[in-house]
Amino acid sequence: MNLRDLGEDALLARILPRLKGGKGVLAGAGDDCAVLRFSGHNRLLLFKTDCLVENIHFRSQDDAAAVGWKAMMRPLSDFAAMSGVPEFALVTLIAPQRTAVRKIDQLYLGLQRAAARFHVSIAGGETSNTSGPLVLSVSAIGFVEKRRWVSRSGGKPGDDLFVTGRLGGSGKGKHLRFLPRLEESRWLTQNFRIHAMMDLSDGLGADLPRLAKASKAGFTIDKRMLPLSPGAKIEHAISDGEDYELLFALPSRHRRRLERSWPTEFPRLRLTRIGSLTSNIKHQTFRPGGYVHFK
Amino acid sequence: MNLRDLGEDALLARILPRLKGGKGVLAGAGDDCAVLRFSGHNRLLLFKTDCLVENIHFRSQDDAAAVGWKAMMRPLSDFAAMSGVPEFALVTLIAPQRTAVRKIDQLYLGLQRAAARFHVSIAGGETSNTSGPLVLSVSAIGFVEKRRWVSRSGGKPGDDLFVTGRLGGSGKGKHLRFLPRLEESRWLTQNFRIHAMMDLSDGLGADLPRLAKASKAGFTIDKRMLPLSPGAKIEHAISDGEDYELLFALPSRHRRRLERSWPTEFPRLRLTRIGSLTSNIKHQTFRPGGYVHFK
Repeated sequence: MNLRDLGEDALLARILPRLKGGKGVLAGAGDDCAVLRFSGHNRLLLFKTDCLVENIHFRSQDDAAAVGWKAMMRPLSDFAAMSGVPEFALVTLIAPQRTAVRKIDQLYLGLQRAAARFHVSIAGGETSNTSGPLVLSVSAIGFVEKRRWVSRSGGKPGDDLFVTGRLGGSGKGKHLRFLPRLEESRWLTQNFRIHAMMDLSDGLGADLPRLAKASKAGFTIDKRMLPLSPGAKIEHAISDGEDYELLFALPSRHRRRLERSWPTEFPRLRLTRIGSLTSNIKHQTFRPGGYVHFK
Repeated sequence: MNLRDLGEDALLARILPRLKGGKGVLAGAGDDCAVLRFSGHNRLLLFKTDCLVENIHFRSQDDAAAVGWKAMMRPLSDFAAMSGVPEFALVTLIAPQRTAVRKIDQLYLGLQRAAARFHVSIAGGETSNTSGPLVLSVSAIGFVEKRRWVSRSGGKPGDDLFVTGRLGGSGKGKHLRFLPRLEESRWLTQNFRIHAMMDLSDGLGADLPRLAKASKAGFTIDKRMLPLSPGAKIEHAISDGEDYELLFALPSRHRRRLERSWPTEFPRLRLTRIGSLTSNIKHQTFRPGGYVHFK
């Protein structure tokens, strides 16, 4: 059965039970806006939207539950980048009429699983028809305490640069199965003064220059130190993208304490010092490069 | 010049200056999430997302600035439906490489004008390539005071039903030029106890039954009372959709006061009592009907 056979009312009846309720959701799917309980006390509101387009960000034959998982986890990874806590999400599904209903079910299953993994309430969204490829877009909101917000721009010359996990080769499947580093990011700002942080979505070669530029700094990297995914080479770690690991700048005086406490807290996730920020803004050991949408 | 010639960096350089800053935006386009100042004191957070798909919600040859205007105003109309105040928006543009850069500029011009009209800060968003039709999606957040939130479900038998403006014939151009009834909606909850409210997006014939059902009530309408757009007939007022007017239920004891004070406050916008809610839940003077996406 496809969407044309099903009809919109039946589609919504199918989807709505999965989008209802959750902590803090006073009104969700089926009303004009989602109405949410939010405490603004000493907190900043975080707001992010991210879309997946068929044939651009995933292939038609990819497992639909994994695509749904990725659609949710990508914006959540941006919350990790800011040491924030995601709370609510809205899901936009734009799908052609020929789409199999089973595929829709699998997409929402993946979305739900991902949201549940980090206690995010899906508070509604919308569906639309299209003559083109399937689009899945997730908007998410949450908070960060004022004193724990980490931007890209606070790095200082001399800061150590760290990355979590392993880089490269994400296209082999990791990009559909990754876990945003939300717990790690919250632990970092609970225990350290992180100067700058971001998540690696376009590849170290594209993202590190952005962090350095925002921080008005240069950087130096020891390429031989890069933590490589199994089978990946240095150039993959730099250019593949979709690692969804954290890149952050830490005052070097905290290096020892971090390297000592990390393995106790996160025994299964590698942490690697890959280089440092420098005062020479033109000092870059590799040129920017990575995934570019329109070229 | 089209998007392929321009490249993503140049596209962003073009768009970003229009997405920067605004009151309460601490970090916007170019950082991982938008970071926003939000006061949660006695307020509820409202969260809405809405998309326009080429060939479904607009035609390729439609004026792009008007399409951008509509893309912003549609979710803002949902804030009006709840008597809320929209504050921040994120814009997702999914466009094929062949799209003319001039068209992109016009889309964002329309988005900006619409946002500025209601003091909404565009706090970022994203762009993606596609092999299919152009998609423009807007996510918006804002607030409503706890005591002023109006849902669809609070209507009582005996309540008068009112609509703002005129209904029908929106397809002739109004759907690209409408003003969400935000000021009217705020004035209503400032001065009256509104039981239930929504914006008319799918047509009175589809939307009124939703309000009645949510309020566990029936309804009766005098079709001859429906305020018709120039050239529209009763069936257009019921089924065309995209009116973006307010439909609300008011305790009948407030009718006289509302009908007296409205013309003073909004001399250029008609207000019409079209019927009332009833206790018989099966009492419906017309059958549901309206725009359905998947059929």
